[in-house]
Amino acid sequence: MIFTNIVPRVSETDGVGHINNVFVPIWFEAGRREIFRIFSPSLDFVNWKLALVKVTVEYVDQLYLAENVEVRTGIQKIGNSSFTIREEIFQTNRLCAKGEAIYVNYNFQENKSEAISNEIRDKLQNIKFVDK
Amino acid sequence: MIFTNIVPRVSETDGVGHINNVFVPIWFEAGRREIFRIFSPSLDFVNWKLALVKVTVEYVDQLYLAENVEVRTGIQKIGNSSFTIREEIFQTNRLCAKGEAIYVNYNFQENKSEAISNEIRDKLQNIKFVDK
Amino acid sequence: MIFTNIVPRVSETDGVGHINNVFVPIWFEAGRREIFRIFSPSLDFVNWKLALVKVTVEYVDQLYLAENVEVRTGIQKIGNSSFTIREEIFQTNRLCAKGEAIYVNYNFQENKSEAISNEIRDKLQNIKFVDK
Amino acid sequence: MIFTNIVPRVSETDGVGHINNVFVPIWFEAGRREIFRIFSPSLDFVNWKLALVKVTVEYVDQLYLAENVEVRTGIQKIGNSSFTIREEIFQTNRLCAKGEAIYVNYNFQENKSEAISNEIRDKLQNIKFVDK
Repeated sequence: MIFTNIVPRVSETDGVGHINNVFVPIWFEAGRREIFRIFSPSLDFVNWKLALVKVTVEYVDQLYLAENVEVRTGIQKIGNSSFTIREEIFQTNRLCAKGEAIYVNYNFQENKSEAISNEIRDKLQNIKFVDK
Repeated sequence: MIFTNIVPRVSETDGVGHINNVFVPIWFEAGRREIFRIFSPSLDFVNWKLALVKVTVEYVDQLYLAENVEVRTGIQKIGNSSFTIREEIFQTNRLCAKGEAIYVNYNFQENKSEAISNEIRDKLQNIKFVDK
Repeated sequence: MIFTNIVPRVSETDGVGHINNVFVPIWFEAGRREIFRIFSPSLDFVNWKLALVKVTVEYVDQLYLAENVEVRTGIQKIGNSSFTIREEIFQTNRLCAKGEAIYVNYNFQENKSEAISNEIRDKLQNIKFVDK
Repeated sequence: MIFTNIVPRVSETDGVGHINNVFVPIWFEAGRREIFRIFSPSLDFVNWKLALVKVTVEYVDQLYLAENVEVRTGIQKIGNSSFTIREEIFQTNRLCAKGEAIYVNYNFQENKSEAISNEIRDKLQNIKFVDK
């Protein structure tokens, strides 16, 4: 599991007075940073490997500016060339959003997916999603 | 159906060289503007009505900075207090992303969902999603 | 002069109920798109040329979600390797923000600025800023 | 002085491979959070007090995805109803951006600026900008 602390920004609120819904996928992506680093250790873009296939987000409760947020991120399933991330956002002990993201290990030069190596597979298995 | 033209911004690209995936939900939300106006005709936030329940996005093909984007938005299903929007993004005649968003008609003062009135129901039915 | 139409997005408002101030530099950057195209005609990032040196933004009046926005963009001054853009944002005939942005013609491979060619200089001179 | 740690997000990079310039004002705003709290202790928007008047940003060096960022924020000058914030962004000990932001203590209900109280003035003076 990966735990990422997010401090909400005024620019992430909207006129209704809460955090706008589009920032939930942005915070989820922020929570995947150490997963990106497994595939691209230097986090430059010279040989980026991951392409997003699908995301699902359920908005469970309102998020506010005033309190810090915890993004909980873990691996749910690993296939041959793709894998599924499960992710949740908590604020003041309330589950506010949950979702899944499917990524494929992608070779952007040759425009095709590639099998996930055993070395990377082991690292992904070490960050399995665990229910709170 | 609602057709929204989006001109991609440099700030919406990422280091891989394409439009970053988080801007797809942002563009989809931009495409829902006239649906928001049905519920809040003046588009101020005095009496905002809609709360997002769930979104699903499938990333089908890469989006680039150089060409304009068309967001296609329409109603797929109307329930008692909630409704489902279907939405697609095209660039240079390629389907690049598609998804669904479920909203509930919500009374933020009383913290409860409310039935969709017949007047609004009729307006939503006029913007049914039509396949390209 | 370049005139860019912007339709404000709900995600660009903040809890105060107006457009959040950080989206003004974003809209100004959106307004510079055709200037970027002069330096990088295909708008890919293979040989991007421009680096931002300095921006100034004055916030003159509130921007709201409900009405479209016009970004007015033009060249104010051209130096040897750098140039200054002047830019304004209007909504419902009100000047809401104005600013300047200084860019340098930059070679990112060799990490140094380069003189602006006469060909590009002529194109920049054709989009001089004109007061409303 | 206020020190804010920022972990750069993939969605904050652009096609050139660095952090896009529009996220610098966003990170600066993030760094002002505790100043906002002085004026609005609960950080809700019921009685928000601050309106941005002017920002200046100088882009000194490139910002990258891979390393954390420190935003240094402090008060430079306090007037009757307005004050000036000075702010800097460092990454790997390099000064990457610096700027100023002028805010006015604003009554949004009555649409007019208000004098800064002595209590708030004292709190602002406690977070004076100090050069590194």
